[in-house]
Amino acid sequence: MKPKKDAYGQEIWAFFQGKESYEIVERDDGFIDLSDGPAVYFADFKKWPRHEKEAIKFAKGKILDVGAGAGRVSLYLQKRGFDVIAIDNSPLAIKVCKKRGVKKARILPFEKIERLKPAVFDTIIMFGNNFGLFGNPKKAKKLLKKLHKITNPKALIIAESNDPYKTRDPVHLSYHKLNQKRGRIPGQLRIRIRFRNYIGEWFDYLIVSKKEMEEILQGTGWKIKKFINSKQSSYIAIIEKE
Amino acid sequence: MKPKKDAYGQEIWAFFQGKESYEIVERDDGFIDLSDGPAVYFADFKKWPRHEKEAIKFAKGKILDVGAGAGRVSLYLQKRGFDVIAIDNSPLAIKVCKKRGVKKARILPFEKIERLKPAVFDTIIMFGNNFGLFGNPKKAKKLLKKLHKITNPKALIIAESNDPYKTRDPVHLSYHKLNQKRGRIPGQLRIRIRFRNYIGEWFDYLIVSKKEMEEILQGTGWKIKKFINSKQSSYIAIIEKE
Repeated sequence: MKPKKDAYGQEIWAFFQGKESYEIVERDDGFIDLSDGPAVYFADFKKWPRHEKEAIKFAKGKILDVGAGAGRVSLYLQKRGFDVIAIDNSPLAIKVCKKRGVKKARILPFEKIERLKPAVFDTIIMFGNNFGLFGNPKKAKKLLKKLHKITNPKALIIAESNDPYKTRDPVHLSYHKLNQKRGRIPGQLRIRIRFRNYIGEWFDYLIVSKKEMEEILQGTGWKIKKFINSKQSSYIAIIEKE
Repeated sequence: MKPKKDAYGQEIWAFFQGKESYEIVERDDGFIDLSDGPAVYFADFKKWPRHEKEAIKFAKGKILDVGAGAGRVSLYLQKRGFDVIAIDNSPLAIKVCKKRGVKKARILPFEKIERLKPAVFDTIIMFGNNFGLFGNPKKAKKLLKKLHKITNPKALIIAESNDPYKTRDPVHLSYHKLNQKRGRIPGQLRIRIRFRNYIGEWFDYLIVSKKEMEEILQGTGWKIKKFINSKQSSYIAIIEKE
């Protein structure tokens, strides 16, 4: 990825350097939002929301941290003695991970996960709504099958999502309709990150209800073991092999 | 202005209602920034920067508050017994001004200032970089002449700007060059406001050095009386008639 297109990495890099940083998320209906962004990517364990603190207890063995950001999850697990590999498609995010002390950090898009072979993982972590990196239901099924191959029989996926239906905001409800009209599921967001003069590429980021998540898992060899709720619409799924 | 295009007013309206609010400023080179936005538009006198506190002491008589936002300047002056009229081109900003107690608040673009006739003002206030509302040097001269006609002989313009040359940021320096290439002065910003699904119209917002401001005043019947500096690149000009 060219540095100019790595808006997400640039925002992480700026924050790491103590410069002004923010994350602007632009959706393809023109909706623009300010996310919690960098502050979350750098958050220490004590600042994590309760459902994440609860879910991380399921982590075990050899761990893959997907969409690692500034490495908050990897650093926490590494400190506790786990063997963890952080991946992110952003070169600057991985640079920051390394500078912050993540021992194994690799620039790798989630789609190319097979390149990590012959690694065999016990836990796949997708925190901070990173179930979204599955992109869309079809791609999700494909990637879940890939994950099945590179994990041990007792492996877990610990993935966070956000129930799109827990809103009454007319702007979001209209977006759901727009998505359905064009053959996408309501929470199949098309977004890009903007920071200063950096404009990221558009990408699909999937947010789903628990029911939709269960449907996505069907036929992939994975099933829900447990849901951990937050006080808001976010939740974490502990996913195990069938 | 259609409510959908009044991103600036929507952001003020959201803040007024205690909802999440922010101001995103998009420049026509793709640079995107988070401004201090609503918090500034609503700031009480005690939170104003020192140079504004100093400059407001020059206000006298019948006052026009240009680009009034949420009415912070008008409310302060009104409380001190001044006769003040707040204008803003945003219907929602003016709605908020009224709800907050500004007695005289009118939806009026600065360009149409002659519609306020037969008002005769002693002070024109353009705080919060609102010298920028002059748009470009040519338009500024035209509007300054208009202001000359609707003001008393001892009238003052109290206008805040931001010296564009007090930066070493390569992104801003490139923008200056881009502007010069297309026949604009470096600080002739072309921007629009974005908030949620609201996208404002593109408009010119002029930031100038003190020297440029003096050049703009030439031939308009106005001249600099005094500059009040801030600790940063912002400054306020007290402008009087020749």
